[in-house]
Amino acid sequence: MPARTGSQYLARLDDRTTEIHIDGEVVTSAVSRHPAFSSVARSFARLYDLQHDPAHRGDLTFPSPATGEPVPVSFLAPRTTDDLVRRRAGMQVWARDSAGFLGRTPDYLASALTAFGAAPAFFARAGDVFAERMLRYADRMREEDLLLAHTLVPPQVNRAVPAVRQGDGALATHIVHERSDGIVVRGARLLATAAPIADELLVLPSTVLRNAPEDAPYSFAFAVPTDAPGLRFHCRSSLHRGGGAFDEPLASRFDEMDAIAVFDDVFVPSERVFLLGRPELCNTLYSETGAGALMTHQVVTRTLAKTEFFLGLASSMAEAIGISGFAHIQQQIAELISYVEIERALLRAAEVEGTSNEHGVFLPRWETLNAARNWYPTHVAPRLTEIVRTFGASGLMATPSEADFAADAHGDLELYLQSATCGAVDRTALFRLAADAAVSGFAGRQTLYEQFFFGDPVRMAAALVGSYDLGPAQDRVRDLLDRER
Amino acid sequence: MPARTGSQYLARLDDRTTEIHIDGEVVTSAVSRHPAFSSVARSFARLYDLQHDPAHRGDLTFPSPATGEPVPVSFLAPRTTDDLVRRRAGMQVWARDSAGFLGRTPDYLASALTAFGAAPAFFARAGDVFAERMLRYADRMREEDLLLAHTLVPPQVNRAVPAVRQGDGALATHIVHERSDGIVVRGARLLATAAPIADELLVLPSTVLRNAPEDAPYSFAFAVPTDAPGLRFHCRSSLHRGGGAFDEPLASRFDEMDAIAVFDDVFVPSERVFLLGRPELCNTLYSETGAGALMTHQVVTRTLAKTEFFLGLASSMAEAIGISGFAHIQQQIAELISYVEIERALLRAAEVEGTSNEHGVFLPRWETLNAARNWYPTHVAPRLTEIVRTFGASGLMATPSEADFAADAHGDLELYLQSATCGAVDRTALFRLAADAAVSGFAGRQTLYEQFFFGDPVRMAAALVGSYDLGPAQDRVRDLLDRER
Amino acid sequence: MPARTGSQYLARLDDRTTEIHIDGEVVTSAVSRHPAFSSVARSFARLYDLQHDPAHRGDLTFPSPATGEPVPVSFLAPRTTDDLVRRRAGMQVWARDSAGFLGRTPDYLASALTAFGAAPAFFARAGDVFAERMLRYADRMREEDLLLAHTLVPPQVNRAVPAVRQGDGALATHIVHERSDGIVVRGARLLATAAPIADELLVLPSTVLRNAPEDAPYSFAFAVPTDAPGLRFHCRSSLHRGGGAFDEPLASRFDEMDAIAVFDDVFVPSERVFLLGRPELCNTLYSETGAGALMTHQVVTRTLAKTEFFLGLASSMAEAIGISGFAHIQQQIAELISYVEIERALLRAAEVEGTSNEHGVFLPRWETLNAARNWYPTHVAPRLTEIVRTFGASGLMATPSEADFAADAHGDLELYLQSATCGAVDRTALFRLAADAAVSGFAGRQTLYEQFFFGDPVRMAAALVGSYDLGPAQDRVRDLLDRER
Amino acid sequence: MPARTGSQYLARLDDRTTEIHIDGEVVTSAVSRHPAFSSVARSFARLYDLQHDPAHRGDLTFPSPATGEPVPVSFLAPRTTDDLVRRRAGMQVWARDSAGFLGRTPDYLASALTAFGAAPAFFARAGDVFAERMLRYADRMREEDLLLAHTLVPPQVNRAVPAVRQGDGALATHIVHERSDGIVVRGARLLATAAPIADELLVLPSTVLRNAPEDAPYSFAFAVPTDAPGLRFHCRSSLHRGGGAFDEPLASRFDEMDAIAVFDDVFVPSERVFLLGRPELCNTLYSETGAGALMTHQVVTRTLAKTEFFLGLASSMAEAIGISGFAHIQQQIAELISYVEIERALLRAAEVEGTSNEHGVFLPRWETLNAARNWYPTHVAPRLTEIVRTFGASGLMATPSEADFAADAHGDLELYLQSATCGAVDRTALFRLAADAAVSGFAGRQTLYEQFFFGDPVRMAAALVGSYDLGPAQDRVRDLLDRER
Repeated sequence: MPARTGSQYLARLDDRTTEIHIDGEVVTSAVSRHPAFSSVARSFARLYDLQHDPAHRGDLTFPSPATGEPVPVSFLAPRTTDDLVRRRAGMQVWARDSAGFLGRTPDYLASALTAFGAAPAFFARAGDVFAERMLRYADRMREEDLLLAHTLVPPQVNRAVPAVRQGDGALATHIVHERSDGIVVRGARLLATAAPIADELLVLPSTVLRNAPEDAPYSFAFAVPTDAPGLRFHCRSSLHRGGGAFDEPLASRFDEMDAIAVFDDVFVPSERVFLLGRPELCNTLYSETGAGALMTHQVVTRTLAKTEFFLGLASSMAEAIGISGFAHIQQQIAELISYVEIERALLRAAEVEGTSNEHGVFLPRWETLNAARNWYPTHVAPRLTEIVRTFGASGLMATPSEADFAADAHGDLELYLQSATCGAVDRTALFRLAADAAVSGFAGRQTLYEQFFFGDPVRMAAALVGSYDLGPAQDRVRDLLDRER
Repeated sequence: MPARTGSQYLARLDDRTTEIHIDGEVVTSAVSRHPAFSSVARSFARLYDLQHDPAHRGDLTFPSPATGEPVPVSFLAPRTTDDLVRRRAGMQVWARDSAGFLGRTPDYLASALTAFGAAPAFFARAGDVFAERMLRYADRMREEDLLLAHTLVPPQVNRAVPAVRQGDGALATHIVHERSDGIVVRGARLLATAAPIADELLVLPSTVLRNAPEDAPYSFAFAVPTDAPGLRFHCRSSLHRGGGAFDEPLASRFDEMDAIAVFDDVFVPSERVFLLGRPELCNTLYSETGAGALMTHQVVTRTLAKTEFFLGLASSMAEAIGISGFAHIQQQIAELISYVEIERALLRAAEVEGTSNEHGVFLPRWETLNAARNWYPTHVAPRLTEIVRTFGASGLMATPSEADFAADAHGDLELYLQSATCGAVDRTALFRLAADAAVSGFAGRQTLYEQFFFGDPVRMAAALVGSYDLGPAQDRVRDLLDRER
Repeated sequence: MPARTGSQYLARLDDRTTEIHIDGEVVTSAVSRHPAFSSVARSFARLYDLQHDPAHRGDLTFPSPATGEPVPVSFLAPRTTDDLVRRRAGMQVWARDSAGFLGRTPDYLASALTAFGAAPAFFARAGDVFAERMLRYADRMREEDLLLAHTLVPPQVNRAVPAVRQGDGALATHIVHERSDGIVVRGARLLATAAPIADELLVLPSTVLRNAPEDAPYSFAFAVPTDAPGLRFHCRSSLHRGGGAFDEPLASRFDEMDAIAVFDDVFVPSERVFLLGRPELCNTLYSETGAGALMTHQVVTRTLAKTEFFLGLASSMAEAIGISGFAHIQQQIAELISYVEIERALLRAAEVEGTSNEHGVFLPRWETLNAARNWYPTHVAPRLTEIVRTFGASGLMATPSEADFAADAHGDLELYLQSATCGAVDRTALFRLAADAAVSGFAGRQTLYEQFFFGDPVRMAAALVGSYDLGPAQDRVRDLLDRER
Repeated sequence: MPARTGSQYLARLDDRTTEIHIDGEVVTSAVSRHPAFSSVARSFARLYDLQHDPAHRGDLTFPSPATGEPVPVSFLAPRTTDDLVRRRAGMQVWARDSAGFLGRTPDYLASALTAFGAAPAFFARAGDVFAERMLRYADRMREEDLLLAHTLVPPQVNRAVPAVRQGDGALATHIVHERSDGIVVRGARLLATAAPIADELLVLPSTVLRNAPEDAPYSFAFAVPTDAPGLRFHCRSSLHRGGGAFDEPLASRFDEMDAIAVFDDVFVPSERVFLLGRPELCNTLYSETGAGALMTHQVVTRTLAKTEFFLGLASSMAEAIGISGFAHIQQQIAELISYVEIERALLRAAEVEGTSNEHGVFLPRWETLNAARNWYPTHVAPRLTEIVRTFGASGLMATPSEADFAADAHGDLELYLQSATCGAVDRTALFRLAADAAVSGFAGRQTLYEQFFFGDPVRMAAALVGSYDLGPAQDRVRDLLDRER
C-alpha cells in the first residue's frame, strides 16, 4: 500500500477502538468525529492528501525500496547530502503547510524508524531476532504509511529523585511479566502528544538507565497499536473552543492534544519488542542508530517554518497598522530575520557537513543540530510571541468574532476597526491569527511545547557540554599562553 | 446610601438596559446572569460584600463627609501620609482578594473622582459651573457607591497618524452637536474594560490635544450611564470557558471583559459635562488634579498584590514537585522576592515622600510612582509568567479536569499525578492555577493588560524623561569634570 | 580627638610601616606618596576634609557620646528612623562626592563597628571580656576616626570544596597558636580592598562554619593594625596609569586597590580578639548585631549615588551629541530614571519601616535591603555601563588626551571633535569620563566589584530565599484554591 | 614580489614618513619601534611570516594570476564554493592566530580590493578610465602584498543631522579642488583603525549620498599612501601599558590602534581616484561589486575564531577552579558552544548557497551574512565577556604580575593562588588572560569595536529589513488566512 490519502487515514482512525478519556468522558470510537479531535485529524488528513497533490508529491514521496510505489520521503534512509536535502524538502512542505504548529506530523517518528530500520547491527547486539523485528516493523510502517506517536516522560512525583525511582519504582512504565510470547507492562508515561489520533504508539527508553538489576524492568523499546487492550489515554481539555477558522485560526486546526498514557498490564507480543533488558543499548539507542540526528533534522525544519511564519505575521501586522517605519519595530523584524537565517544556515550546514555512521546512514552533523536544539527553545521561541504581542499591543485585546461581523451591528466594526491598509474584516482576521499565535491558550501551550520539547533545558545544556569536544578551543588558549614563555 | 453590598450591586446591574454585543448576540438585560458576565460580576459583588465584612470594613470604608455613613475609603481625599496609608490599606484588601487580576475594581476610578472632586479650582478655570458639576457628580458616586468604567484609546487605523486624525477625524469620539442642554457625541473608543458590568462610563481626554480649532471637538470630559441611549459595547468573547473554580480558577472569577465603546450620537446632559473645549485643561487634567497620582497609587497596590501572588504560586509549585533546592530555581524565587520588596518600597516611599498639591490633596510622590509604572510593565510583568512556566514546564501541559477526577478512571490520575508533598487532586489544582496564571488565554490577556495598561511603553518612556528633573544628576557630572580644571 | 582632617589622615598613613607588595616592589613607608596610592589617598583625604567643610560638617558628624566633640555620623548608633535618615544624609555626601566609585569609604566599616559596639549582649555570650573588648575598640575607632579595611574571601583553590577545607585547611586564615596574651594566625584572605591605605584591618568570620572541632581554628573575629608584623599585602597593579583628571577622570581619583592579605604568623593581642572559637556566634555575627543591615544601608546609599551619576552622565552625553530625541535613547534614560527612583525608594522604605533589634539599635528593614543587594548587582550594575557604551558608541574609541589638546595640532581636534552643544575639549572631557566609567580597565574592575561585592550571586539568592517568609504569599494561593471547594 | 615576510613588512613600515600624533607627540619615522605600535606591528609581522610557514603557506597563498608566485589567498577572486572555502581556510589561519582580536588583518581590505578588481564593468559605468585604475591598483596591492587601512565615519557633531551636513559640510572629508592631474581633499574621518601601521589608506564612500549637486564633493573613492603629505593621524593612547605577555597577554599583542584621519588639503593623483562625483555608484559600491559580501565573509571568519577562543577560555577557567560541574556554569558553556556552532553554520551555509554576481564573482549568500553581522554584535559579543566575568568573578580582581612572581615574596602567591588543577603561575596566567579579554581597557575597547563595527545597530537593522524579501513569509500568512474563507 503506497502513501496514504487523508480519507484513508481518517477511515482507519475511526475504525480503531482506542480508549480515550477526556473531560470525564470515555471515547472509544469514531475519534475523527469527536469535537476535541476532528479538526486536528482533518489537518493531518490534509497532510496525507498533499502526498497526492501533483505540486507536492514529488517532494513528499519516494519509490518504496520494496515495491517501487511512492511512500513517504521521511522513510528514505539517507546515504548522501542530497538525500538529506530531499528528505528536508518533503518535511518542509508539511512544516510550512502547518506553519510549524504541528509537532507530531508523521515524518517526526518516521525519521526515528528510518534510522532504526537502517541499523540492524545495533539491534543485533541484543540478538539477531531484535534486528529482524525492528526491520520488519519499520518496513511495515513505511509501506502502510501509519501515524506513530511516542511517549517519553515518566511520572514526576519528585524531580529531585531519578525517574525510574518515582513512587518506589511503581509509577514509571515497567515490565511486570516476561512471557514466552511477549511482555506485560504497567505504569504511566506523560505526554503522549497526538497519540489519540495516531495508529501506533512507540515506547522507547526515556531516561538514563544504570546497568543494574533494579533498572532491568525499565529497559525496553517496543511498539503497540494505540488501541491495545489495557492502554488508556487521559487527555487534557481541547484548546479548540469550537470556533471556525476566522475565530480560532490555529486552535481550530492544529491542537494536537496531549495525553497521559497509562499501561494497565498491556500485553506486547514479542514481534513488537525491539530491545529488552539491555540498559547500555537503551541509553545509546538514539545516538548510535542516528535516530536523534534524523529526528532533530525534522524538528529544525519545523521550527524554521514556524519562525518564517512569525516573521510573516509580525511584518504583516506592522504594515497593517502603519508602524513599519519605527526604529524599534524594525529592530524586532530584523531580529526575526536573523533567526530565520540562522535556522536556515544550521539546517544547511548540518546537511553539507553530514557524515555516514557505521550503519551507512548519512547523518546531518550532530554538533550543529545539537546547538540548534539548545538555542531555539531558550533564545528564539519566547521572542517570537513577545514580538507579536509588542506589535499588536492592546489591539489584540478586543477583537470581534465571525458572528459579530455577521450580526446587525457589524457596521460599527467595519468603520472603527479598519486599518491603514485593509478593511476591518481582514485586519481582524490578521489580529485574531496573531492572538492565536501569541496570546490564546493554544499559544500558551505552544510556548511550553517549544520550550520543553527536548526536556529540561538545564539537563540539555549539560548533555551538550558533555558531548562536545572542547579540546581544540582550549588548545588555542593554551597555545596563546605558551607562545612567548 | 452607604457602601453597597454585593447583592445591591448585582440588582442594579440587572436593572440596567446597557446595550452589549457579544458573539453576534445582543444583551440588554440581566447582565449578571449572562454566562460571559456572571462570574466576574459575582467577583465584584464579593468585593462589595467585603465592605460589610467585620474583618475588613474598617479598612474598606470611612465615614462620608456628607452623611457620616460608611462609604468606600477610595473616596477619602487624602490630606496626610496617613490618609494615603489608609487608602492603600483598603485598596490592598481588594487587590489581595482578587490576587491583582481584577484591574478595574471600584477603587481605581474612585481614585480619579476623588482627585477631581477635590480640585474645584481646576475645573473652575473652565467656568464655575464645571467645578460645581464635577463636585456634585463625585459626591453622588461616593454616596451611591457606583462602579465606574472608563475608556481612553481612540481607534487606531494608522499608528503613524495622530489619534484625533484617524480616519479624517471621524473615528475618534467627538462632539457633533452642542445643544443648550448638553452635547451629542459620536465615534468610538477602544477598550472600555469592565464597562458592561459597570454603572457609569467616564469619558476623559485621551491624547495630547493642540490648542487649535480642529481639536475642539475632541476636547471634553464627561460621564454617561452605561445604558445611555446610543451607547453600544462590542465585547470580545469571554475567556471563561464555563468551567468551575477547579478547572479555570482565574478565568472563572476574574475575566473583566474588554469592549469597544461606540457612541452613536449619544446625548450627554450638561450636568454630566465636566470639561468642554479647553484643550490645555484636557491635557493637564490628570497631573493638575492629582488624579494620575491617586490612580497610579491604586495600580501599584494592585500589581504588588499580583506579584506577591506569583511569588506564592511559584514557591508553592517548587515545593510540590521537589525542586526548591535547585540553584536556578532559587535564583528565580529570589528574583520574585526582589520584585515584591521593590514594589512594596515604591509604594511606601511614595507615601512618606508625598506632598500636598495646590488643592490641598496630599499626593504620593509622582517621580516614584512614575518610575513604578514604567518599570513594572517592561521588567516585572513578563517575568512573572515566565518563571511560573519554567517551574511547571511540561507538567502544565496535560492537567486533568474536575470531571476527570469524578470519572471512573480517576484512580489512574490519583496514582500517577501525586506529587512529592501532596495528592494528585491538590497538585492538579495548583498546576491548573499556574496554567491559568501563565499559559491560558486568560493569562495571555492579562499579560497584554499589564504590558500596555498605561499605553505604548515607548511613549511612556518619553513622558517619564520629559517630566523628570535631570539637572541634579547632570550637575554632579559637571562638578566632577570641573573639579580640578 | 574629633573627626579627622585630610592631612591628619595622610600623615598617619605615611607614618605606618605597612608591608605592601606591588609590581614586584616592596613599599613600607610614605604610602601616600607612592604613585599607586597617592591619588586615591588624596580622594580619601578629601572625604575627611569634608567633615570640616561648613557646608557638610553638619551632615557628616555628630557629637561624640564620650566627648561631645564632632565624630563621624556613621558611628551614630541609630535609635529611630530619624537617626537612620541622619546617618544616610552623611553617607550620601561622601557617596556623591565620589560618585559611588569608592566602595570603602570610612563609613562602610564604621557602620559595622557601630552595630558591634551597640550589641555587647551578643559578644557577652562568648564571655563578658569579649563584649568589653569590642566596646573599647569601637569607641577608640570612633574617637580616633580611623580608616578600617576588612578582608573576607578565603583562597579559592577549588570552588567545589568548602572554604575552610581549601588546600587541606592550610590556606584559609586560621589560628596556629592560642597564647595567654593573644592568638597567632596564619593563612591568606583575598581581596583586602583599600587595606594598603587603611589604618586597621578587620578580620571577621567569612563563611558558614560548622559546630565541629575542625572548624574551631577558623572561628574568630579580630582586628590588627595594617602594619602588624607578619602581615603582608600583595596588590594588583594600579589602574591609574598616571594621567591627570582630564585623561583618567575616575582612575586618577578612585582606584581603591585590591590586595591579597597574607598572615605569616601574625600575633593578635587579646584585647583585639572579639570572638574566639564559637562557630555559632561567628555565623550569626552580622545578623544578630545588625551590622549587616547598617553596612547594606551604606552600600545602597552608595549605589544610589552611582546610579544617579550614570543617569547624569548618559543624559549629558545624549544632549552633547544630539541624540536625546531618539525613542531608543529615551527608553534607556527612562530605564536609568527607574533605577534611581527604585533605589531611592528602597532606602527610604527600609528607613521608615525599620525596627529596633534586641540591642536597641534601630535597623533599616532587612527584607528591603536584602532585596536591594540581590537586585542591584544582577539587574542594575551591568546596565549602567551598557547604556553609556551604547550612547557613546564608536565615539568612545579614539578620544584625544590632554597632551593632544596642548600640542601644535590641537586645531584639528577642536575643529573635528566639537559637538552639537559644546566645544571639542568639553566633549572630549565628557567622553573620556564616559570611557573611564564604562570602557577602561578601571570600569572593568568596577563592574566586577559591583557584581560580586556581596559574593556569589547564586549563594546570595539562596540566602535571600532561605531567610524570607514565604508563608503569607503561599497562604494567599492556598486561600484562593480553597475558596469554593 | 610574492607574499611578504614579516621583516619585509616591518622594513617598509619604518621607511614610511607617516605623520602620527599620539599623546601630544608627533611620530614620523621608525613606527615599528615606537612603544605604542611596536607590539602590534610584531603581531602583523607574525601573520606575514605565517605565509612562509610550511604548515600554513598552502592555506595562506595562491599562485598570482600575473606571475604564478604565491600571493595572499584573500586576493583570490572566487568563482566557486570551493574558492570561498579556500579563501576562508586562509583567513581562518590568521583569525585563529590572533584569536579574533585583530580586526584589520590584511585579508579584510584585500577582500574588498579583490571584489573591486573583479568588477571592471561597475567602475566602467563612471568611465573606462576608472575601471583601468581600479584594476591596476588592485593588482599592485596583490603583487606587493601591501597592508591597507580604511576610514569611514565622518565627524559626528550632531547625530540628528546627516553625515555630510555636519558643521555646514566643512567637517566631512570632501573635495576642495579638482585638478587636471587629480583631486585635493580636506576634512576628517574618524576611526582609521590600524592606519598608522598600514601602507595604504582607502577612502571609500561612507554614507548614503543623494543625487544632488551639494553631495558631489562627498562622492568619491580613492586611495593614498599613509604618508601622503597633508594626511595626519591623531591616535588615542595605547592600551598596551608596556607589560609583557604574562601581564598583558592580549593588549601586548593585539592593540591595533584607532586614529582620526585628517586631510589637510591632501592631493590624490588621478590614477588613485576610482570613483568621482557619481553618488549613485558610491551608494552601491559595496553591494554591486560584492565587496560587502567578501568583507563580511572575512569578518564572520574572524568572529568565529574569537568565539571559539572565548569558549576555550571560559571552559578552561571552569576546569581550573573546579566549577565545571555546576548547572549554571554548564548552561553558559552550552550557550558559548551554540554561538560557535551557529557562526560556523552561517559561514558554511553562506558558502554553499553562494551565487555568482554579474561580474562572475562567486559571492557567499548575502542574506545569511547580513543576518550574521546583525546578530553577532547585539546577541553574542556582549555575552562572551559577561560569561568570562561571571566565571572568574572576584578571582579576576587581584591577580599578581610577572614581577610579583619574580620577587622575594613569590612563595605567598604560589601557595595561596594555586588552583584545583594547576599551579599559581599557570592559574594566574589564565586569569590575566581572562581579565585582558573581559575586564581590561583593551577588553573594553574590543567590546565597543564588535558592537559598533558595522555602525549604528539601529540603522543596520533598518538596512537588513529594507533589503530582505519578506514576501514569501507574508504570503504564507495570507495563505493560511485565506485557506477556508
